[in-house]
Amino acid sequence: MRPYDPESLHIYDTTLRDGTQQEGLSLSVADKLAVARHLDDLGVGFIEGGWPGSNPKDAEFFRRAQTELNLRGAKLAAFGSTRRASKTAADDPQVAALREAGTPVVCLVAKSDRRHVERALRTTLAENLAMIRDTVEHLRAEGKRVFVDAEHFFDGYRVDEAYGLEVVRTAAEAGAEVVVLCDTNGGMLPTQIGDTVRAVLDASGARLGIHCHDDSGCAVANSLVAVQAGVTHVQGAANGYGERCGNANLFTVVAGLETKLATPVLPAGRLRELVRVSHAIDELTNSAPDTHRPYVGASAFAHKGGLHASAVKIDPDMYQHIDPAVVGNDMRMLVSELAGRATIELKGREFGLDLSDEKEALGRIVELVKEREASGFAYEAAEASFELLLRDEVYGPERYFTLDSWRVIVEQRPDGEVVSEATVKLETRGERHVSTAEGNGPVNALDKALREALAKAYPGLKAVDLTDFKVRILDGQEGSGAITRVLVETTDGQTRWDTIGVDENIIAASWQALQDAVTYGLRRQNEVPDPDAV
Amino acid sequence: MRPYDPESLHIYDTTLRDGTQQEGLSLSVADKLAVARHLDDLGVGFIEGGWPGSNPKDAEFFRRAQTELNLRGAKLAAFGSTRRASKTAADDPQVAALREAGTPVVCLVAKSDRRHVERALRTTLAENLAMIRDTVEHLRAEGKRVFVDAEHFFDGYRVDEAYGLEVVRTAAEAGAEVVVLCDTNGGMLPTQIGDTVRAVLDASGARLGIHCHDDSGCAVANSLVAVQAGVTHVQGAANGYGERCGNANLFTVVAGLETKLATPVLPAGRLRELVRVSHAIDELTNSAPDTHRPYVGASAFAHKGGLHASAVKIDPDMYQHIDPAVVGNDMRMLVSELAGRATIELKGREFGLDLSDEKEALGRIVELVKEREASGFAYEAAEASFELLLRDEVYGPERYFTLDSWRVIVEQRPDGEVVSEATVKLETRGERHVSTAEGNGPVNALDKALREALAKAYPGLKAVDLTDFKVRILDGQEGSGAITRVLVETTDGQTRWDTIGVDENIIAASWQALQDAVTYGLRRQNEVPDPDAV
Repeated sequence: MRPYDPESLHIYDTTLRDGTQQEGLSLSVADKLAVARHLDDLGVGFIEGGWPGSNPKDAEFFRRAQTELNLRGAKLAAFGSTRRASKTAADDPQVAALREAGTPVVCLVAKSDRRHVERALRTTLAENLAMIRDTVEHLRAEGKRVFVDAEHFFDGYRVDEAYGLEVVRTAAEAGAEVVVLCDTNGGMLPTQIGDTVRAVLDASGARLGIHCHDDSGCAVANSLVAVQAGVTHVQGAANGYGERCGNANLFTVVAGLETKLATPVLPAGRLRELVRVSHAIDELTNSAPDTHRPYVGASAFAHKGGLHASAVKIDPDMYQHIDPAVVGNDMRMLVSELAGRATIELKGREFGLDLSDEKEALGRIVELVKEREASGFAYEAAEASFELLLRDEVYGPERYFTLDSWRVIVEQRPDGEVVSEATVKLETRGERHVSTAEGNGPVNALDKALREALAKAYPGLKAVDLTDFKVRILDGQEGSGAITRVLVETTDGQTRWDTIGVDENIIAASWQALQDAVTYGLRRQNEVPDPDAV
Repeated sequence: MRPYDPESLHIYDTTLRDGTQQEGLSLSVADKLAVARHLDDLGVGFIEGGWPGSNPKDAEFFRRAQTELNLRGAKLAAFGSTRRASKTAADDPQVAALREAGTPVVCLVAKSDRRHVERALRTTLAENLAMIRDTVEHLRAEGKRVFVDAEHFFDGYRVDEAYGLEVVRTAAEAGAEVVVLCDTNGGMLPTQIGDTVRAVLDASGARLGIHCHDDSGCAVANSLVAVQAGVTHVQGAANGYGERCGNANLFTVVAGLETKLATPVLPAGRLRELVRVSHAIDELTNSAPDTHRPYVGASAFAHKGGLHASAVKIDPDMYQHIDPAVVGNDMRMLVSELAGRATIELKGREFGLDLSDEKEALGRIVELVKEREASGFAYEAAEASFELLLRDEVYGPERYFTLDSWRVIVEQRPDGEVVSEATVKLETRGERHVSTAEGNGPVNALDKALREALAKAYPGLKAVDLTDFKVRILDGQEGSGAITRVLVETTDGQTRWDTIGVDENIIAASWQALQDAVTYGLRRQNEVPDPDAV
């Protein structure tokens, strides 16, 4: 076990620069500041804030960062490129922006593939080296710590090893603290990365870093193999954001270093913030969290029940690569047609219910779940509906209203306009309510009508909103008469829950899911069920 | 460059078994058959269809596969476990199901971690070896090719190398053709995989395979490193489906082997089908395609414009790890979208239309497709709708009727019964028709009403049937008001065609798809359009 030292192994986050190259991802300055705070909470060593010489938003970020961002431990870095071929470093406005960004660290991108020097930069190999030397020396003289990103390093090294090495040596001799070998096009495999890192380390003696992209699906592995081969600086982006297939997911790399390679790279105890920080940054970037993401995904430690459930209960370590609590995640048992009593008992525990003495109810629930799943239900995707079913079976049904009838009308009128209207008739707390609502679709109209009918008796429902709606046609070989499964996600602003409905009629399936969503919401608000409701 | 030989390096797909363990993923038997056909089109060597001894759905799959699945090249495998501790292999009903599955190949899972033998299986180490030996020998005697999945191999090998090796040797000596080392918990890193594979290969001399999960974010890298270390059988799942963080993405592995390791593993030319097959399987599993997926993602070769745009155009190879056409993908410029006149001209040729002189129409179509796709259409999944759009633009619209209005009513009556009724009013060939029909759902009712309204003018429509109906909610963060995409599959008994509709209202989207389906069917029957229709 290495001791924790953020300087001996750099964790360098480039979410705010390279990560924002992701298609469709765009952050305001306020968003960028918020992301930086989350990364600092997690405990990364360096946060690259942007390229102040390339756009006004990044320049503003660095201005505001100086007063608004009180980092606990992370050091801020400004990104830029070596001076232009025609200028001195001191006279280059892009370099000036780096000088003035107010950061202790500057990361300079430099060409290291001779083809890019000659064909894209259109200068000589010697001038490119001079550009690197001048710019590094200039910024060092200005008191900056300088890291150099050797762009396209691995591709270039395959074509001209000697030139790649000269770039590394030139940068290091000029005072660059780290030379970062970049797989800019992202096509490398771990064996190539390991071999090249070892060779460059031997030949140059420079301190090396790694920067990977995921175009071959190996970015995380490539980063870890590079550390094993001797680099002491790792770049990546939160949640693997980035252009094309993304940058190396820095969170996966950090978790790998800490849990697999006995290399603490965050302050003690911070790894437990990983799930929270990952999800918080997804929120800020408006990305739907990938539930299958290593370590942090909602499914990352989810086990399908069946045969193994009892074994998982006794020996969770035999079925998990790490203890999920280490990264702030939880083991989840998925309820499915394969579930047995043990799974359901464990699931009950997640809901705060002790079912260890409820043998008979557990047996009934197992049968019910099997039957329902066979007819198209999928409770693993709708835990709120499952919790309602479970409580119904153990404690008896809890109902908040008695439905009389509902009706949905959708029509395209002769003028081409399409309108949706729904009517719900129900009784609750001794009163009958009839509500009609229009919506932009039949389910939206039905949802509105249901809430309106309940609004008087349960005003707290105002805080409850439908946030997602999914439809799946099952066994689609029978035309539009096939079974439809509807999943609804609902929120009260604090938490989200998923409910399900299954019917050959899509509107009837939606109704079931909406009804469960509302019932679950009322339960969460500690509303007392209507004793007369059936 | 190795020559292509599907037997010397097995590409073994487990989408239909291990892939379906993914949370929320559930496939009907018809879906499973369709996925198998796509995998066969791609050219994988082996397709694991399921576990016939564990559930009736998988047993039905193997029954239907024998008559309905005419695989071009792939071999079907049935998955099962070694016999129970108490039974002989011949008497074990689970083994019998494997015998009777009608597949040339059987893949047996065997415990290879002593802790799992002792604590989960609760038998002796010797009995576990006997179970492996007996079951392999029994199935070999029945004429099956047998592969053995050594479950939890890498975790077990760290605890007890000797026992892991004994499992490998026992399986190989009993006649297993390949012993597959499984990283069942998915926590391994490439260096561990490479070292262990080499050691086991040296010590056992057995033919080895690899089966990885992505819990450490290294499944693809681990699979490739294992091949470099000497395994000659690779298991994975389409699009990386699977429990927790998923199985190794077989498509990424295959692309890596072919493009990075000079190892052809698909029949010549098939790699170009990769994008199409990946997306088609996403459609069948109702998964939103991950746009950032290596090789096949819509963003995988998308370059943000700016400084590099012109350089990328001149020297694309300097900015891409491979030529995207090799995997059936395209380079995309995100600022100045490179339009696809050539693609559309080629597509027209597929429909029997020569568009080489239709420069202006092609330009309009490119714009229209861009606009429609941006609003949620996906023409690659609905070629019939695309053909109609193309003909409309080139030859002018062909209409068979003029819609006046439609209306759908769905209601749950006080007695609990749900009924759906639709009315369609239209004019065709100078006559007005008003039809009302009931159905088991709103779309079914609408479909019936539309055909009834057209029945008199076009009696040939009787032969046309709706066979599949799929719904996808796009941009699901706006609740039930999100955009809905409906895909309809229709047949006339000879051929099938797919049409699409997109609207915020699910019924309106369905109407569009139904209208296209009927129009395309009438065109196929060489009906003359109604000259008065608009």
